[in-house]
Amino acid sequence: MATPRGYGIVPDVQAVDPSALVPEARQGRRSVVRISRAWYVACTAKELRGKPLARVVLGIPLVLFRAADGTAGALLDRCPHRNVPLSEGRVVGDNLQCAYHGWEFDCVGACRKVPGLTSEPEAKGRNAPSFAVREQDGYVWVWAEPDDEPTEAPYELPIGDGKGYTIVRRTVEFPGSLHATLENALDVPHTAFLHRGLFRGNAEPNDIRCVVTRDGRGVQAEYLDEPRPPGLAARILSPSGGTVTHYDRFRLPSIGEVEYRMGDESHFTAISLCTPISDFHTRVFAVVAFRLPVPGWLVAPFIGPVAMKVFKQDVRILALQTDAIERFGGEQYISTEIDVLGGQIWRLLRRAADGKAPDDDDSFRRELTLRV
Amino acid sequence: MATPRGYGIVPDVQAVDPSALVPEARQGRRSVVRISRAWYVACTAKELRGKPLARVVLGIPLVLFRAADGTAGALLDRCPHRNVPLSEGRVVGDNLQCAYHGWEFDCVGACRKVPGLTSEPEAKGRNAPSFAVREQDGYVWVWAEPDDEPTEAPYELPIGDGKGYTIVRRTVEFPGSLHATLENALDVPHTAFLHRGLFRGNAEPNDIRCVVTRDGRGVQAEYLDEPRPPGLAARILSPSGGTVTHYDRFRLPSIGEVEYRMGDESHFTAISLCTPISDFHTRVFAVVAFRLPVPGWLVAPFIGPVAMKVFKQDVRILALQTDAIERFGGEQYISTEIDVLGGQIWRLLRRAADGKAPDDDDSFRRELTLRV
Amino acid sequence: MATPRGYGIVPDVQAVDPSALVPEARQGRRSVVRISRAWYVACTAKELRGKPLARVVLGIPLVLFRAADGTAGALLDRCPHRNVPLSEGRVVGDNLQCAYHGWEFDCVGACRKVPGLTSEPEAKGRNAPSFAVREQDGYVWVWAEPDDEPTEAPYELPIGDGKGYTIVRRTVEFPGSLHATLENALDVPHTAFLHRGLFRGNAEPNDIRCVVTRDGRGVQAEYLDEPRPPGLAARILSPSGGTVTHYDRFRLPSIGEVEYRMGDESHFTAISLCTPISDFHTRVFAVVAFRLPVPGWLVAPFIGPVAMKVFKQDVRILALQTDAIERFGGEQYISTEIDVLGGQIWRLLRRAADGKAPDDDDSFRRELTLRV
Repeated sequence: MATPRGYGIVPDVQAVDPSALVPEARQGRRSVVRISRAWYVACTAKELRGKPLARVVLGIPLVLFRAADGTAGALLDRCPHRNVPLSEGRVVGDNLQCAYHGWEFDCVGACRKVPGLTSEPEAKGRNAPSFAVREQDGYVWVWAEPDDEPTEAPYELPIGDGKGYTIVRRTVEFPGSLHATLENALDVPHTAFLHRGLFRGNAEPNDIRCVVTRDGRGVQAEYLDEPRPPGLAARILSPSGGTVTHYDRFRLPSIGEVEYRMGDESHFTAISLCTPISDFHTRVFAVVAFRLPVPGWLVAPFIGPVAMKVFKQDVRILALQTDAIERFGGEQYISTEIDVLGGQIWRLLRRAADGKAPDDDDSFRRELTLRV
Repeated sequence: MATPRGYGIVPDVQAVDPSALVPEARQGRRSVVRISRAWYVACTAKELRGKPLARVVLGIPLVLFRAADGTAGALLDRCPHRNVPLSEGRVVGDNLQCAYHGWEFDCVGACRKVPGLTSEPEAKGRNAPSFAVREQDGYVWVWAEPDDEPTEAPYELPIGDGKGYTIVRRTVEFPGSLHATLENALDVPHTAFLHRGLFRGNAEPNDIRCVVTRDGRGVQAEYLDEPRPPGLAARILSPSGGTVTHYDRFRLPSIGEVEYRMGDESHFTAISLCTPISDFHTRVFAVVAFRLPVPGWLVAPFIGPVAMKVFKQDVRILALQTDAIERFGGEQYISTEIDVLGGQIWRLLRRAADGKAPDDDDSFRRELTLRV
Repeated sequence: MATPRGYGIVPDVQAVDPSALVPEARQGRRSVVRISRAWYVACTAKELRGKPLARVVLGIPLVLFRAADGTAGALLDRCPHRNVPLSEGRVVGDNLQCAYHGWEFDCVGACRKVPGLTSEPEAKGRNAPSFAVREQDGYVWVWAEPDDEPTEAPYELPIGDGKGYTIVRRTVEFPGSLHATLENALDVPHTAFLHRGLFRGNAEPNDIRCVVTRDGRGVQAEYLDEPRPPGLAARILSPSGGTVTHYDRFRLPSIGEVEYRMGDESHFTAISLCTPISDFHTRVFAVVAFRLPVPGWLVAPFIGPVAMKVFKQDVRILALQTDAIERFGGEQYISTEIDVLGGQIWRLLRRAADGKAPDDDDSFRRELTLRV
């Protein structure tokens, strides 16, 4: 079975053989997932200008550049001739030129020039492996399998035309695996503890219901009965007195969404476009879109510092978690039923990494209670 | 046979195949011993106060903490839930609380609280592996096998009630394996060379006899005919003119003792409680107890600087030795009969690491001559 | 076949399976050559004086020292007793003394003293492996196979008595494999690109013919029709108006020669004595000998800065190439016919590394055209 030993499928509690709980020297286990036939954000559209840009996705060194007409290309960052990184070269017209012997490659990796050669430069063996590229919503997405035809389009930001919304974008780095970063982004219980006082954990805890639904491509947790914030805040955010709705969602292979509504007046969505740079380093292109009964410019100064504190606390914890995972040779997790999405994300990632197609027969619905 | 190739069992001289004497790239050998069913000092009693303390023993990351009543506990330094090091958390009453989701564990690793969970927190799979702990002689000893019952008591310091003795304790770090550190602590020939002028090697060398006795649990070298120090020193240390007796002892798995007597008046014991932090890093909790015909406060100022010089010379040599061992992929030692204890210590460590019980039929007595 | 996959034997172009062009994590390939039964320069004669000198050749740590009469010895830099590097010791008379217990070894590695031992120090197992040494042309050469008899003499500098020549010697470090460093030293096309403006690549390119000849021990490229430098430079360098001749040569296993003549007046030879320190670090003992119609002291100030710029550009490129090779787990080169010597050097190195004797039946002659 693909699940690593000791990893508890929610909500079962598994016993772990104590003799296995000693560090790496005696073991050797790594549960990292790598899904290459998928789109990931390599950079923002603005980051890619006149110079070649070196980026790593799934551990693969890429070079991105734009042809004279602005078309973006992504090649393996290694000249097929003598293996010098192409990102150390420069863009010449429509081509990327290697710094060592001046070989030139176009946006799809074809060799267009070999200085000094009197015959034709083009030959199949001289091409650089290339990666499909799409520019969309201000991001440059790459398909992480070389010389492959994408079988779907990149994820579209669910923010419509954005009218009436304040939209904030940030690129942040997490020292954690794709799984650990996504679980952290979508996990509720740690917010009341690690981020105590910042956005949960102040008042007496409430029992709230959670409905988890999974299909072949993702999983969603809907939280019911979540209390409205006390006093003034509630009156500002929802003068009509509407109910609170809250969804956390994961979409294969790398998207996290957190959505809150309070009545009709307030709507908040935080989207995490996660790019696994390497096994334990994930870059998150975060998009926050919110519409409140008060002007965005009025609340933004309050949200920013709080978000930064939350981010720093999560980064610190993920770094500690990653250190331990590496030291012990792999994750050895035990879960309870309130680890609502972590195990589901894991299951979906493993299936996809094993090359299994999304399977809606694998769908799932469950209710549970959480005290936060 | 468990002995690594090229390691000379005392006092045989073994020929080493020259083609084997090239670095690691062509080989791959490591003769480190790991004995986990044994007591090691994790820290001094004073070091363990209100905060959790991270320590590594035999490469195993441990967290030590004290419950409200002062009882010490030692757990694997990894939360079973999401693997964050427990040493990053804090002590709450009798429990150690993880920093990520707030899970709490008691002194024996039982899970006592899972914030947010509406059902019982305790479940076998949620426990943290724990290590037996004993506080004794001012040290906190841990049994390095998780969830195991110790089969013996920790080593007791042979200093009785200490009356009439000056006792000095120091914690020092050696960049060497447990074996290399113990051999260094108990080896005589290097003292006349590496530490020349500090406590041996000044005068004309003498031939002295040495009697080596080994039983299943340790080995002792007794040096006979060792000359008294010259002139004034001898008259101070032994006004009665008594003989010099000198013992070096190793006790499994990690204790070194050096004992000197000059007549009835002077008695000096240096005990090395060695803790293998990792394969090539040994922490020594050193206890020196001495009784001299002159007041301890009078000689201490002279002993301290000399001990520090000796320590620094040994640290430098062990670091060089370790570098070479790592570069060449393992020890490749050749011994002569005057490497009195090194080979014996190795043999005893290997037997214990292989899980063999102490065997007094394996006992041993030999005499040899050493020129120092 | 010994040639690594993807390495194009000149001048064939090979197709590379795109699925293979992803980084090391998915592969694992290394095409480094190690030829130990050969002479390499360990140091200059002047560098080896009274103190032991630690040097690494082919990854093997060596210690060099001189006996009282000046004879040089080279031993494995590890005391056979307790493995401390002998280079940390000191020279005592004709012997090298270890810093730990004072064991002493002579120039051929025989153990001559064991302090404290009452019996004979010499015994076969106590010897340090030794390496044959020759001093010649101001360099100390070592034969990189321990305890072996050299089957040939070291390479002799082809500079005769040097009369009428200006000779400059430099030791420079390249962050590249032996193969990459030698190819770089003897490659023409990159000079017109990477070093553009420094000694090629200014004017309109010319088609020039190149004759490549290989025998069992090396390979040579002779460039025909190379144009004379324009204007004043030509009149200075070759007042008689003679033709330009240019040879690049590789001699197994580690020698590069570049030779230029312009008429009878100007003659320039650059010799690279390459020592593979480790797989991707090559030290080059460079000897440049030139005879010009103008005094050496007049042109040296102009040649020095240009050579330094060329050197820095090559070092930067080799470092980038090495990074990529290591990241991708090995070279994956594609060559064209104008990679005149790289593939030949590779073939000769592989044959020698596989222990094959030089084979003149494997000789070879080919003409090609290059546009520079």
